[in-house]
Amino acid sequence: VSDPQRANIPMGDGAEFDAIREMLAEWGDLARGVGDDAALLDVALGRGEQLVVSTDASVENVHFRREWMTPEEIGGRATAAALSDLAAMAASPRALLLALGVPESWREELVRLARGVGAMAERASCPIVGGNISRARELSLTITVLGSTAAPLRRSGARPGDSVVVTGRFGGPGAALRALLDGNVPTPADAARFASPVPRLEEARWLAKRGAHAAIDISDGLLADANHLARASGVTLSLDLDAIPRVDGVTAREAAASGEEYELLVALPGDARVATRDFAARFDLPLTVVGSVVAAEGEPVQLRGAPIDLARGHDHLS
Amino acid sequence: VSDPQRANIPMGDGAEFDAIREMLAEWGDLARGVGDDAALLDVALGRGEQLVVSTDASVENVHFRREWMTPEEIGGRATAAALSDLAAMAASPRALLLALGVPESWREELVRLARGVGAMAERASCPIVGGNISRARELSLTITVLGSTAAPLRRSGARPGDSVVVTGRFGGPGAALRALLDGNVPTPADAARFASPVPRLEEARWLAKRGAHAAIDISDGLLADANHLARASGVTLSLDLDAIPRVDGVTAREAAASGEEYELLVALPGDARVATRDFAARFDLPLTVVGSVVAAEGEPVQLRGAPIDLARGHDHLS
Repeated sequence: VSDPQRANIPMGDGAEFDAIREMLAEWGDLARGVGDDAALLDVALGRGEQLVVSTDASVENVHFRREWMTPEEIGGRATAAALSDLAAMAASPRALLLALGVPESWREELVRLARGVGAMAERASCPIVGGNISRARELSLTITVLGSTAAPLRRSGARPGDSVVVTGRFGGPGAALRALLDGNVPTPADAARFASPVPRLEEARWLAKRGAHAAIDISDGLLADANHLARASGVTLSLDLDAIPRVDGVTAREAAASGEEYELLVALPGDARVATRDFAARFDLPLTVVGSVVAAEGEPVQLRGAPIDLARGHDHLS
Repeated sequence: VSDPQRANIPMGDGAEFDAIREMLAEWGDLARGVGDDAALLDVALGRGEQLVVSTDASVENVHFRREWMTPEEIGGRATAAALSDLAAMAASPRALLLALGVPESWREELVRLARGVGAMAERASCPIVGGNISRARELSLTITVLGSTAAPLRRSGARPGDSVVVTGRFGGPGAALRALLDGNVPTPADAARFASPVPRLEEARWLAKRGAHAAIDISDGLLADANHLARASGVTLSLDLDAIPRVDGVTAREAAASGEEYELLVALPGDARVATRDFAARFDLPLTVVGSVVAAEGEPVQLRGAPIDLARGHDHLS
């Protein structure tokens, strides 16, 4: 594929990515631009915009357990996860499709699930235009989102000299998950971060306007997603664990490994201090420098003074 | 919603549609244009084209059993089913996303599933641009397809005086399914119609150019889908069961109830005899007049000389 926008992007380690690589090998040139947060389509819209599309599944007992959240939260969280992939591309949501797999035991909760989907879609000004409904043995919500952008932020654009910044504070979803798995009650703050994530749509567009070179949303964990972005860009990210902003009661390591944050990790050119100040004033949310981009050398992510076996994140297939 | 293209379309009976209606009631104006084969988006492309998108799920033990088909056939059939919704809108495929739910027992077959998806996508000249992969208790393929069209064919455009025509010959998938459920071996012809359906993409664009007013693809069964189109258009379809072209060894009733045909039912203005002749010459596939559109009166589908309790089709939720 000659157009670099259509080339597939290098991906990280793990069973999930091995499976994707096997399928891409099978498809050859038929697969185009796979490996970013969302696909950038060769479909020109008005005003110099391009179409962006992504699909994301939330499956009961894989991504959540029924007793952990209300149906509204399950619907809203699945929708936020899908929209977060548009945020990572700095795209504006244009349409959403909801494919539901519904066991009989969930049939009575459909409207509450739909309410959660609708509330999050409404918040993102994203019309719901279609979907599919099927019987299934486990509840699943497969959400496809379409967006548009004149200035897509890709995983592959980071360059040596960029600052690495992150939105928000980390560790809440991971702390909530640990508590839930241990049979404990998460703190209200952690539970809210886990059950009600917010896609950073406006924040991403603001950062794109400030000249950001690359972005990824944090679904697998900050270090794992930093690894994805570094591989996609062919660079190394040098990160300072202690610089990662975190919620109360979690360690730096826990913050760095916490998944399903739906915050953004962004490569900003040069010194990012002015951007972090302006961002915090605009969004009432911290934007924090956590490291820098250097030329590729050794591992894609290097931690200042820490081992790097944290960099795996969790894997949806293994 | 003031734009009629954005209004939701009246749907038929059954648990699946009841569930969708409940969700639409919850969403209010947030849901737009739901109820057609694919969603027509308010996104203008070049050359006066509009964007069309649809999502469709194939779930093991709901839509197929593992022992009935090869993995390549399962992948190809799921892809054909999704693309068929673009055909029903007379749209040209532009991109496909594949969301897979994969149990451990299917992990070794992923490449063969992907091969089937790829072969059908290639045949339709449709790039694969993204997807999602997740663990799951049962295999599911949720396929989202994007297309473009300058002249969308909707379910809602049929008018009194139109001829009702269908592509192809009916009954093969239904006969194969009956044989499989009874533990018998389907005939090779029926098995091929069941396992390797073909979306009628070019055929639909040809019919749209000939001035077709409305179309639907036959997934639930000819009579059930005729019912959907009639309700969406606010008309009655007067159909002649005996006119339905059918494969060897099936009755007219079986042909009329056979689902997952992925043939098209189309409302063509006026006398369709010239169109049927030209179509057959062009595509080596019959196009057959099976009835006519009349003003709404009583049931949405009226069979000449037959009871209408066939008109239910199968329902993916009940």
